[in-house]
Amino acid sequence: MGNTEPLIPASSNHHALKAVANAQSPRSSKLGYFFFVLITIVGFLSTRLFPFFGTTSPTFPLNNPWQELAAHCEAAQPIPASEFLQRQHQLALALHELNASAYIAEPGANALFFGNISDASWHLSERPLLLMVSPLVRDGEVSAQITILTPYFEETRAKLLSVPGIDITYVAWQEDEDPYAIGVNALLISSGRPIYVDDMIRHFIVDGVANAAPGVQVLSAPLEITSLRERKSHAEIALLKCANEVTVLAIRAVQAQLYIGIRESQVMEMVDDALAAAGLTERWALVLFGENAALPHGTGTDRLLGTSDLILIDAGGVLFGYHSDVTRTFQLEGSQIPEDHYELWWDVHAAQTAAQRTAKAGIITAEVDKAARAELNGRGLGPYFTHRLGHGIGLEDHEAPYLRGGSDAVIQTGHVFSNEPGVYIEGKAGIRLEDCFYIDGDGQPVYLTAGVGGQAVDPLHP
Amino acid sequence: MGNTEPLIPASSNHHALKAVANAQSPRSSKLGYFFFVLITIVGFLSTRLFPFFGTTSPTFPLNNPWQELAAHCEAAQPIPASEFLQRQHQLALALHELNASAYIAEPGANALFFGNISDASWHLSERPLLLMVSPLVRDGEVSAQITILTPYFEETRAKLLSVPGIDITYVAWQEDEDPYAIGVNALLISSGRPIYVDDMIRHFIVDGVANAAPGVQVLSAPLEITSLRERKSHAEIALLKCANEVTVLAIRAVQAQLYIGIRESQVMEMVDDALAAAGLTERWALVLFGENAALPHGTGTDRLLGTSDLILIDAGGVLFGYHSDVTRTFQLEGSQIPEDHYELWWDVHAAQTAAQRTAKAGIITAEVDKAARAELNGRGLGPYFTHRLGHGIGLEDHEAPYLRGGSDAVIQTGHVFSNEPGVYIEGKAGIRLEDCFYIDGDGQPVYLTAGVGGQAVDPLHP
Repeated sequence: MGNTEPLIPASSNHHALKAVANAQSPRSSKLGYFFFVLITIVGFLSTRLFPFFGTTSPTFPLNNPWQELAAHCEAAQPIPASEFLQRQHQLALALHELNASAYIAEPGANALFFGNISDASWHLSERPLLLMVSPLVRDGEVSAQITILTPYFEETRAKLLSVPGIDITYVAWQEDEDPYAIGVNALLISSGRPIYVDDMIRHFIVDGVANAAPGVQVLSAPLEITSLRERKSHAEIALLKCANEVTVLAIRAVQAQLYIGIRESQVMEMVDDALAAAGLTERWALVLFGENAALPHGTGTDRLLGTSDLILIDAGGVLFGYHSDVTRTFQLEGSQIPEDHYELWWDVHAAQTAAQRTAKAGIITAEVDKAARAELNGRGLGPYFTHRLGHGIGLEDHEAPYLRGGSDAVIQTGHVFSNEPGVYIEGKAGIRLEDCFYIDGDGQPVYLTAGVGGQAVDPLHP
Repeated sequence: MGNTEPLIPASSNHHALKAVANAQSPRSSKLGYFFFVLITIVGFLSTRLFPFFGTTSPTFPLNNPWQELAAHCEAAQPIPASEFLQRQHQLALALHELNASAYIAEPGANALFFGNISDASWHLSERPLLLMVSPLVRDGEVSAQITILTPYFEETRAKLLSVPGIDITYVAWQEDEDPYAIGVNALLISSGRPIYVDDMIRHFIVDGVANAAPGVQVLSAPLEITSLRERKSHAEIALLKCANEVTVLAIRAVQAQLYIGIRESQVMEMVDDALAAAGLTERWALVLFGENAALPHGTGTDRLLGTSDLILIDAGGVLFGYHSDVTRTFQLEGSQIPEDHYELWWDVHAAQTAAQRTAKAGIITAEVDKAARAELNGRGLGPYFTHRLGHGIGLEDHEAPYLRGGSDAVIQTGHVFSNEPGVYIEGKAGIRLEDCFYIDGDGQPVYLTAGVGGQAVDPLHP
C-alpha cells in the first residue's frame, strides 16, 4: 500500500468549497468563513489521516476495467472426489505391479494430487504428517488403503483435512514415540518390497522411514508413479486452460490501461488487481520495461515507461490448485519501438512456433528445446537464449518433465509444458513469449491459451 | 484489516456536530442547518468510505505504548563475518576427522549458519543452488573450501548472496547439464569418504548427488556436525536473549492496553504492532481467551474478553536470524478468575520450575520432559499436558535437540531450549507458560528472559 493518493479525489474537496462559496451571503459571511475554514481543514486532514488509503482509478467500482475477467472462469469446478479416488486406485495398481509396499508423501504437490493435502492446508514442521498409500489385494481386486500418519495432539485438525478416500485410517504418534516406527507398523511391509517416496520429501523423513523398516529399500518414486501426476486428465486440462486464458485476458486488459510515463511498480499492482478480479489465487507478476527486461531481477521498480520501450509481463496465478504462466512482450499504440527490437520479437515468435511444431507424443523433450534453439541460433541469437525452453506445469508452477537439453524424458498424451523462448541483450532489450500447451488425445500440441487466440499475434496484440 | 471501526471515533463526529450547534445563531440558523446536514453526511460517509481503515487508539503516534520497546535491542549486532569463518573452519575440522569428502546444504537454516544463505535470500526451486564445504589440508593445516553450485543464468545473483569465506568458488551449471555431476566434479571425492548432507535437504538432491558420485555414501550429517549449530556461541546467545526479552516486554506492554470486551483479533494486531516496534521480523502470535486456549487452533477470533477469562499469548519474532518464543497466560487487574483456574496456573508454573531445576549439561533431554510431567502427574493433570516440554531454538523456531520423552540426546553447554509445560482442559481453560533457557559455561540453565525477570511472577504479572 505504497500509494499515497487519497480516496476522495482533489476535485471533491473542490466541490465542497464551491458549495460553501455559493451558499455564502453577506449576512452570514462570518459563519460561512468559519465553515469554509472548517471544511478546508477536514479536507486537508482527510488527505493526511488516510495517507495509505489509495485506490487507483482503474479499480474504482464505477469504471472497473477488470470487470469482464470475473466471468471467464465462473463455471470452473474443483477436481471432484471421484477423480481423487481414481488417482488413488491408479497409484495402488502401480504399486502392486511394482511389487511395492507403499508410497509416502509429505504435504505438497504430490500429497495434494493423491490426497488433497497441500502445504498450504498443512504447514510443514519438524513433526511429520504423512500420506501413506498401500495396495490392498482382496479377491484379486487391487484397492488403495490410505493411512494418514499424524501427530497425536493434532489428530483432530488432521481429520479436518478432508482427504477423499474409501478406506482411510488415521494413525497418531505420541510425542515420546518414533513417528516412523508407528507409521511403518501401520503398513504391510516386507523386505523384498520397496517403499517409494515423493522425491520432494525432506531427507530426514526418508532416514526415519528407512531406520524404522530395516531391510526395506526406501526409494524415490519411479516414472510409473510420477507419470500419474505428470499426465493430466480432462478435468485438470480444463482448469489449466481457464487459468491460462484468463491470464492472457488480464494482460490484455492491463495493456489497455497503460500509458507512457507509468511505472513498473504501478503496472505490477494492476496485474495483481486484474488476476484477482479473474479469481486467481497465489498471484505473481514480473513487469519489466525496455532494457530492464534483459535482467529480470529488478522487476517492479519505479522505472517509467518510455516511448521506445517494449513491456514484458510474465504473470500467473492458481485456479483450484492449477497454475497459469503466461509471458507477453508488447508495445503501446503510438510508441516508437526501434526496428531491431521488432526483429528480435519476431525471432522469438519464430522460435516459439518452431518448438510448437516439434512437440508431440513420442518425441524426446530435449528435441523441442533444440528446435527453438536452432531457430535462434540460425539468427545469431543462440547466446542470448540463456535458459531452457520450458517446464511442466500443473499443481506446481514448475514441475517435471522439463523441455531442456540433456533431458531424455519422452513426451506423452496429457503432458503440459510451457513454451517460452527468450532473448536477453543486456543494456538493450529482453523479449520472452510464453504460452503453455498440452498434448491432446491424438498426441498433438494444443496451446492452453488457444481459446483466446493462442500465441501472441504481433507486438501490438499480445 | 478485518477491523471495521472508522479511524475517527464516534465521539469526534459528535464534537463536530456540537461545534456546529454552538456556532449557530438565530440569524444564520438556515445556513447552520445546511452545514449541520453537510457535516453529518461527511461524517457518515467517512465511516462508509473507509470501512476497513481501523487504527485502535494504542497505535496512534501521539500515545505510542510500544515506544520504549524500540530501544531494547538497539545495540544488537548481526553475527560478524569472523564468526562465520570460525564455523566454516570447525566444519572443515569435523569433516576431516570424520574422513568425509564434503558437507552439502540447501538454502535454509544450515546454509544460513555456515554460509549466510537463508531460504528467504534464495527461494528454493527445482534448480539446485547448493552450499558445499570441503576440508582442505595444506601443510598439515585444515581449512574450509567453500563451493557454491549455482544455475548458470543466476550466477550473478548467487554472487550477491555475500557468502562469508576466504576460499570461495562459484560453480555454475548450464540448463542442459546435470547440476550434480558439475557439483561433484568440483569436489575432491573418493569412495571411502562419505558426503554428508543437511538432513532438511529435499530428497531429490540426495538422489542427484548419489547418482553423480557412484560408490560414495551420501548420508545425513552426524552429531559431530549438527552439534556445531546446536551449541550456541556468545554472540548467538546475546541475540536470543534480546529477542526473547523484548518479546516478554511486548506482552507486558500489550497487557497494559487490554480491557474487558476487547477481541482476540484486536489483541493479535496489538502484539504484532508491539513486536514490530521492538524491531523483530517474521513475527507471529497466538492469542486465546478463556476456554479457547484449550484448543489453540482458533486463534485470533472475534471472541470478546470476559471478566472470568485468562488470556494466553504465545508470540515470537526474529532478530538478525535468531528466534524468540514466549508464552504468557495472565489476567487483567479486576477480572474475576475462577479459583480452580488459578490453581491450574500455579500447577503449570510448578512444572516449569521443576523442569528448569532438572536441566543441566550431561542430563538426557527426556529427563527434563519427565520432570515437568511428573509434577503435573502428581497433581492429576498428566493427561492434560498433551505435548512435549520443549524444543531447541536458534536460527529456526523449532530445531534439534528436543525436550521430549523418548529422546536420548544429551544436554550440553550452549544448548538452548524452550521450557513450555501446559494443561488444556477442553471447554474450560488452557494454560501454558514458556520461557527459553540456555546452558551456560558451568553447565547450568539460565532463562533467556532472565534480564527482564525470567519466569512469570503470578497471573497478574506475566
